[in-house]
Amino acid sequence: MAYLDHAATTPMLPEALDAYAAAAREIGNPSSLHAAGRGARRLVEESRERIAAVIGARPSEVIFTGGGTEADNLATKGIFWARRDEDPTRLRVVASSVEHHAVLDAVDWLGRHEGAEVTHLPVDDAGRVDPEEFAGLVRAHGEQIAVVSVQWANNEVGTVQPIPELAALASAAGIPFHTDAVQAVGQVPVDFAESGVAALTLTGHKLGGPVGVGALVLGRDVSCTPLLHGGGQERDVRSGTLDTPGVVAFAVAVETSVRARLEYADRVTALRDELVRRVLATVPDAIYNGDPERRLPGNAHFSFPGCEGDALLLLLDAQGIYCSTGSACSAGVAQPSHVLLAMGADDARARSSLRFSLGHDSTEADLDALLAALPGAVERARRAGAWKTPR
Amino acid sequence: MAYLDHAATTPMLPEALDAYAAAAREIGNPSSLHAAGRGARRLVEESRERIAAVIGARPSEVIFTGGGTEADNLATKGIFWARRDEDPTRLRVVASSVEHHAVLDAVDWLGRHEGAEVTHLPVDDAGRVDPEEFAGLVRAHGEQIAVVSVQWANNEVGTVQPIPELAALASAAGIPFHTDAVQAVGQVPVDFAESGVAALTLTGHKLGGPVGVGALVLGRDVSCTPLLHGGGQERDVRSGTLDTPGVVAFAVAVETSVRARLEYADRVTALRDELVRRVLATVPDAIYNGDPERRLPGNAHFSFPGCEGDALLLLLDAQGIYCSTGSACSAGVAQPSHVLLAMGADDARARSSLRFSLGHDSTEADLDALLAALPGAVERARRAGAWKTPR
Repeated sequence: MAYLDHAATTPMLPEALDAYAAAAREIGNPSSLHAAGRGARRLVEESRERIAAVIGARPSEVIFTGGGTEADNLATKGIFWARRDEDPTRLRVVASSVEHHAVLDAVDWLGRHEGAEVTHLPVDDAGRVDPEEFAGLVRAHGEQIAVVSVQWANNEVGTVQPIPELAALASAAGIPFHTDAVQAVGQVPVDFAESGVAALTLTGHKLGGPVGVGALVLGRDVSCTPLLHGGGQERDVRSGTLDTPGVVAFAVAVETSVRARLEYADRVTALRDELVRRVLATVPDAIYNGDPERRLPGNAHFSFPGCEGDALLLLLDAQGIYCSTGSACSAGVAQPSHVLLAMGADDARARSSLRFSLGHDSTEADLDALLAALPGAVERARRAGAWKTPR
Repeated sequence: MAYLDHAATTPMLPEALDAYAAAAREIGNPSSLHAAGRGARRLVEESRERIAAVIGARPSEVIFTGGGTEADNLATKGIFWARRDEDPTRLRVVASSVEHHAVLDAVDWLGRHEGAEVTHLPVDDAGRVDPEEFAGLVRAHGEQIAVVSVQWANNEVGTVQPIPELAALASAAGIPFHTDAVQAVGQVPVDFAESGVAALTLTGHKLGGPVGVGALVLGRDVSCTPLLHGGGQERDVRSGTLDTPGVVAFAVAVETSVRARLEYADRVTALRDELVRRVLATVPDAIYNGDPERRLPGNAHFSFPGCEGDALLLLLDAQGIYCSTGSACSAGVAQPSHVLLAMGADDARARSSLRFSLGHDSTEADLDALLAALPGAVERARRAGAWKTPR
């Protein structure tokens, strides 16, 4: 078995799972006043401090959520509502056209349901947002922009965006800038304060922590209307019983992955580069997508002309090679990737794509397994494709 | 140590924790198409079926969420939006005055922010909603009611509401009826289909499962606007990567607690009755709050005249007795309980209250510890209270 789908979800680190189990054996709701509750509260607050320390934030800026999707929805909708309530003419929401669906669909809903005017920032053929283009938008419409959301790194093609540059433009115009850094934390340097963003999403299961736990890092001075009302546990911005074991395990994973990042990035980048070299040597007309330089260490994304990505995925799956045609979050839906289309790919090329993503337990053996299976799979997928109407 | 705060959170069952750890050692995002993803998907769908089977629902009606607060917010806001979008004059939202803050604060926000007209159903001195009163409201305003939310059982005083009767009245008028059954599942008989409700909230950590995992059981024909947009993983009503280990552990806990319910209820009711008898024998002027008959097995709720509940809580805490003045979700906020006030208690009586809640690992020894500490604590709390301005 070769698991080449770490960007969809990566195995929980043994130390994170141990931390989960140890905390789950303790009793106490962190909002309870008695000693058991205070013990749980201490675990939560220590976890908050550990996360804050390694991502350049203050502990009070870390708001625990039920994962990345919730944090993205909270940031986009919550900041939109708060800014529109301050000034009803602030109706514009700006997002890059290659955002994850958790941002794109949230923003789309704001447009359909809440009267927002949505602007999608275009990207170039490597998936990069152009700061000049963004600067122009801010000059033209700055007063009306409620919130901006641009991901730190793309989940499909791995392109890393110039976040500090974009955030500085927004900040100079007084516009809160949110970034979905779910794919970035533990992979590339991410420092909340230095980046200048107003809000940042991270999540557990992309970096060796549990699923269902994430955080929105939110500047103290950024107004944000809650999505989930209730006990007001998290700075009155997010309610819900704090998941002590989940939060503890999340903190272990964030700390471990950020501290190990340099060594990890060196090793995984080398492995990824070898994968790319070997794939291109084996399938010479394959197209390597995304930014060749500013890119996530573990990401290798290709188009295989003449193949349907889904067919290729299943042929590789039959050989025990696990990869993805794009985001797992829209897998199963037979649509060409919106990311590839935004990068200027035509429908056929977008449909012929496959993502291989490496992680902390990836090895040379995974590459060997992939390369042994790939030529046959590509050939079969091409033969199957030839039966269909040419595109 | 005597843990008498099971209503705030109850220890995770060892079999649920084992199931969590086993699932966490498997890799795969349930939305991925390869074998690892399909394996995770199988675990999620089996869990959905197990939960559905024991709560009288169809598997497709179970929508996994990040806990009870999210499910309550989704039901109240989501159904309100969907119904208002169908008919802009449907602006009324009805909730009992003793709901958990996850419903009360969500509904309050709909009133403040979304133009809803909020009606709070009163309760009697035992915390019961009157079906006649509700019937009158439905007759008078049925056409304008977007959604109704009445909890199955109260988290503070344990009163069980006549849900099937209320739901039938709503259903006859075509109004979706939501119930927060977070405290009820595994404690009293709860059957989704038989109850006639349109939507029902349950959560893991109140019945021996993990924190941060819950479900909204939502009838197939009930329209509900999503709170969290994204991949559309859960029937397009809820997005976010499915937490396979959490969902598996949640299912184990729901199944175990519902199957063991009769035996559990017998044992815990007897223990609770003994606790009540002994407390009233020891502190003769204590007032036993809530419905003496239609009540959660593990709930014992008292007012101790002349005491501040917070002082009493901390004095007992110093002796290793853990209990609560009300909902842990609003603990720390020095406000008299809205539940007690709604039941007609005055401020002083509301502030003098304490909840003891028993659970699956409660024993006679917990009662002995409580009764050994209580008289001294009450006496000290009364002396401390005497220094303050009399209320």
